[in-house]
Amino acid sequence: MKKVMEATNAMFPLPVVLVTSGDGKKDNIITIAWTTNICRKTPCIGIIINGKKYSLDLIKEHKEFIVNIPGQKNLKEVDICGGKHGDKVDKYKLTGFTKEKAKEVKASMIKECPINIECKLEDIYVKETSNLLIGKVLKLHIDEKILDNNGKIDYKKLDPIVYAQKTYFPLKEGIAKRGFGLK
Amino acid sequence: MKKVMEATNAMFPLPVVLVTSGDGKKDNIITIAWTTNICRKTPCIGIIINGKKYSLDLIKEHKEFIVNIPGQKNLKEVDICGGKHGDKVDKYKLTGFTKEKAKEVKASMIKECPINIECKLEDIYVKETSNLLIGKVLKLHIDEKILDNNGKIDYKKLDPIVYAQKTYFPLKEGIAKRGFGLK
Repeated sequence: MKKVMEATNAMFPLPVVLVTSGDGKKDNIITIAWTTNICRKTPCIGIIINGKKYSLDLIKEHKEFIVNIPGQKNLKEVDICGGKHGDKVDKYKLTGFTKEKAKEVKASMIKECPINIECKLEDIYVKETSNLLIGKVLKLHIDEKILDNNGKIDYKKLDPIVYAQKTYFPLKEGIAKRGFGLK
Repeated sequence: MKKVMEATNAMFPLPVVLVTSGDGKKDNIITIAWTTNICRKTPCIGIIINGKKYSLDLIKEHKEFIVNIPGQKNLKEVDICGGKHGDKVDKYKLTGFTKEKAKEVKASMIKECPINIECKLEDIYVKETSNLLIGKVLKLHIDEKILDNNGKIDYKKLDPIVYAQKTYFPLKEGIAKRGFGLK
């Protein structure tokens, strides 16, 4: 039996990422769980920042950002970055995260995160208090430890964090490949 | 040691959903893994359809769609709907999914999916061959079996499917609540 409920955001679970912005000196980190891929032809990804945030100001100023994909080993730092405000505290100091120089953008990558995606801000789609920031992927940095024998990302080795209803979840082993149902 | 790779879409894992469209008679189902929440104030969600798709035509025609969130029990059907074309086959017949009448939109909900989100098409953000369809959430239907004692969705009971690199993953138990790192 289904219950009808009023409108709410129920598109979950979504991956938790850490977005870094700034000029390499005055930097910030924000935890974001509303993200997706946007375009395949010219690879673009999207992150959503709700309301007024220090990171939003920095991204608007520098027109670039980095998406750092953490693993479960970074979970405590992820939670801290989601609960503090970057205009009041230095989240690199607070978490102990190390700044790593990016190739094409001024903002720093988080060294401890296994995947770093350098992005140029292409556009902002505004919907009421929400800002969907669309970033063109410039460069991808992947920790060799999470690559499989074919040089592709092994998501099990990444051990990503997904988020739903204020709870962090790890993944079990992958159970089927796309196309298994068509055989 | 990190390896620098060329630009690609690496925002994963993302939840797999089934989007239904049509008029309740001429209907289609499409499997989509590029999704997110967009806006909290007026709850809006986003789904991305890449390239020419029958579902895209139906959604543009009727200005509405339904996001059906499947559980692992629906995995085979999810895979089938992702590998077949709705202008050639009737995916309801192919999968055995049952049409359930929605409250506010003409398209059918998939009865077997524990969550159905009725949406009105608010806007389409086009980026090259990609279409980000933004839907205003009208009604949410939740199977009582996946609710916890407080009437909220229990994502462990939902047993959702997340997707990364052509592989379907289930979730382990949630391991921490938001805010645990701040204590």
